[in-house]
Amino acid sequence: MPQPLRLGIAGLGTVGTGVLKIVRRHESTLTQRAGRPVSVSAVSARSRDKDRGVPLEAFAWEDDAVALAKRDDVDVFVELIGGDTGPALEATEDALALGKDVVTANKAMLAVHGQRLAELADANGATIRFEAAVAGGIPIIKALTESLAGNEFTRVMGVMNGTCNYILTRMENAGLPYDDVFAEADALGYLEADPTLDVGGIDAGHKLALLSAIAFGTQVDFDGIDIEGIENVTIEDIEQAADMGFRVKLLGVTQMTGRGLEQRMSPCLVPANSPLGQLENAMNMVVVEGDSSGQIVLRGAGAGEGPTASAVMGDVMDLARGIRTPTFGQPAASLRKATAARASAPAPFYLRMQLEDKPGALAKVAATLADAGVSIDRMRQYRHEEPSAPVLIVTHRTTRAAIDDAIAAMGQPA
Amino acid sequence: MPQPLRLGIAGLGTVGTGVLKIVRRHESTLTQRAGRPVSVSAVSARSRDKDRGVPLEAFAWEDDAVALAKRDDVDVFVELIGGDTGPALEATEDALALGKDVVTANKAMLAVHGQRLAELADANGATIRFEAAVAGGIPIIKALTESLAGNEFTRVMGVMNGTCNYILTRMENAGLPYDDVFAEADALGYLEADPTLDVGGIDAGHKLALLSAIAFGTQVDFDGIDIEGIENVTIEDIEQAADMGFRVKLLGVTQMTGRGLEQRMSPCLVPANSPLGQLENAMNMVVVEGDSSGQIVLRGAGAGEGPTASAVMGDVMDLARGIRTPTFGQPAASLRKATAARASAPAPFYLRMQLEDKPGALAKVAATLADAGVSIDRMRQYRHEEPSAPVLIVTHRTTRAAIDDAIAAMGQPA
Repeated sequence: MPQPLRLGIAGLGTVGTGVLKIVRRHESTLTQRAGRPVSVSAVSARSRDKDRGVPLEAFAWEDDAVALAKRDDVDVFVELIGGDTGPALEATEDALALGKDVVTANKAMLAVHGQRLAELADANGATIRFEAAVAGGIPIIKALTESLAGNEFTRVMGVMNGTCNYILTRMENAGLPYDDVFAEADALGYLEADPTLDVGGIDAGHKLALLSAIAFGTQVDFDGIDIEGIENVTIEDIEQAADMGFRVKLLGVTQMTGRGLEQRMSPCLVPANSPLGQLENAMNMVVVEGDSSGQIVLRGAGAGEGPTASAVMGDVMDLARGIRTPTFGQPAASLRKATAARASAPAPFYLRMQLEDKPGALAKVAATLADAGVSIDRMRQYRHEEPSAPVLIVTHRTTRAAIDDAIAAMGQPA
Repeated sequence: MPQPLRLGIAGLGTVGTGVLKIVRRHESTLTQRAGRPVSVSAVSARSRDKDRGVPLEAFAWEDDAVALAKRDDVDVFVELIGGDTGPALEATEDALALGKDVVTANKAMLAVHGQRLAELADANGATIRFEAAVAGGIPIIKALTESLAGNEFTRVMGVMNGTCNYILTRMENAGLPYDDVFAEADALGYLEADPTLDVGGIDAGHKLALLSAIAFGTQVDFDGIDIEGIENVTIEDIEQAADMGFRVKLLGVTQMTGRGLEQRMSPCLVPANSPLGQLENAMNMVVVEGDSSGQIVLRGAGAGEGPTASAVMGDVMDLARGIRTPTFGQPAASLRKATAARASAPAPFYLRMQLEDKPGALAKVAATLADAGVSIDRMRQYRHEEPSAPVLIVTHRTTRAAIDDAIAAMGQPA
């Protein structure tokens, strides 16, 4: 029997526990598929005594993730601690420096330090695998990096934060305002300790930054993403959008334009009968557009013990089989620095504004948009509330830059 | 610069031509991603002179696929000839015997000879990659074999023949009978030379047999599939299904039951608002259910030059990178012989029958079903045409065996 692949798992929350369960439950299947056993040598976590529903006696215990990563009996360091600094980063660096492969679910760490860590991995003959970091159980990293490696990508987009999608679909289905559903989600434990990570679009932005690097061969550029969260989406927006045949989704889009890489994460109107429009609750979906493949859509659970542990195990099984693609699909030194092309790809835009209820207000808006070169597809004034009237506008395809110009001009005296 | 991976491509139809175009168009990107160049040494096809819109001068020409596979300057044999016997099979065997990896889009060959070829590959340290054989551009083979390798699969199902899905959606959208749409599809060149391969469910069955082998670690068992094509689906079936909130799809389902492996390919009613129900025209969709991943849905083009060539190139790039998973995800010798469990997994069934328009006819049907243990969810007599009346029945969950018993009993004198 060939040597087992020996894991050291740091972090025993739901995902780490899920990985331990799979390794135990499917021991013989994993061995048959990988051609060698997959075993766990050691684990570390904040509390040793917590009951996780899975026995830990068979594994060595380390209080310190760094010590775990350095152990001689650990071939692969599985980082499930989280956070973009601290022990997760330190232990990852130490593992890579020793030439050990790292499997991680840590999107924040890779979005911030991805380029440096990928270079460190390359320099030491190691690789970082992070299927679990993006869209939970959906195998999007492998699809982009390997299955679709014969394509030039034109665009990648997706709904990659289940909490936001839950909030938006719950608002629509129950007709509830944002604040009520936010409170519900909080009570259900769906929100991160800092909820801005979710509803502010940061977490989904981290994921988008990783997809961009693979798809376009660019260095991870989280700072280059235009991020807008869902905090300002109102129930009126959702109801009006539904009335026009759309749903509101926190959509990430990355595409290479003539002016550079455009990455945005923002609430978008998508056709209600499209695959993205039909995505309900905490599900995730990623849409890849390749020049040969055409549009490939992947859908699945974006979080949770099973789906995320499944993604971690996919990476572990690859390493057990000797599959060691470079971190972002090509040597880190060959990744180009991205030029952030903000607001340049044309799209239709949705605007909601409160207009003073006096003659000429609407005319001024229309004229200002026209001056900025923005043409109007639909406009509706949907409720009359003295002293102001809410107006919705859906534009034809234009750029965010033109929209920003028009909005700035609207603030000026006529 | 490391040595290039040198391809020999047999078959220059749309897919082979598509592969040549990608290798030329993305030369530098492929090199960067694979860490080595991908080149074409030699090609073979039936006609050397046909204009394929891509220059062939740079490649050696072989009239014979077997000679191509054996060439010293061919590392990987790319088999795009098709057919389950003849030069495709012969050249594949010769390549494997020489320890050369094979990339193929040939579902028929693998469905019939898969186990033997996989054993031959293992014996010679080679592998067969066949992403392009199932669902065109959708990376389902890699997802099952690698990304989801930590899962035990409970069920895999999908719509995997674009021509059938085109015919069924066209019937529904245009309200046309089967024969008219079949003639349309024929005129458009959508049908195979032997259309039974498509509309008889054979082609989709070949694909399902391959998915079963990977998902359940069993030897390919095409003969174990219960196959029913779409030839007997009427516009009435489609309209009545739509009226009840369903769409008719040629659906392949494979699942491991207590009695063995159940594989079926047959027209099924699926909820109109489900991802499968919304799949239109020639698109394909595969749904994988893993014990950890939950339900993963993949959607994309099931055929065509670009998507299929994209899948071939995914396999080629894997081989260029040294990714060489065993043919069906584990050593061929470890694949168990499948016990075909026909008709054992419970499901609701849809029945359409012509009843004699006389007292007691419907009562007899209901009693016969009850005797067979089949309980009725919905029944409707939807049009009265002397001397017989069409009756539709949707049952509660039951087995195909019980349905078959009831149907047999209906033929008996009361």
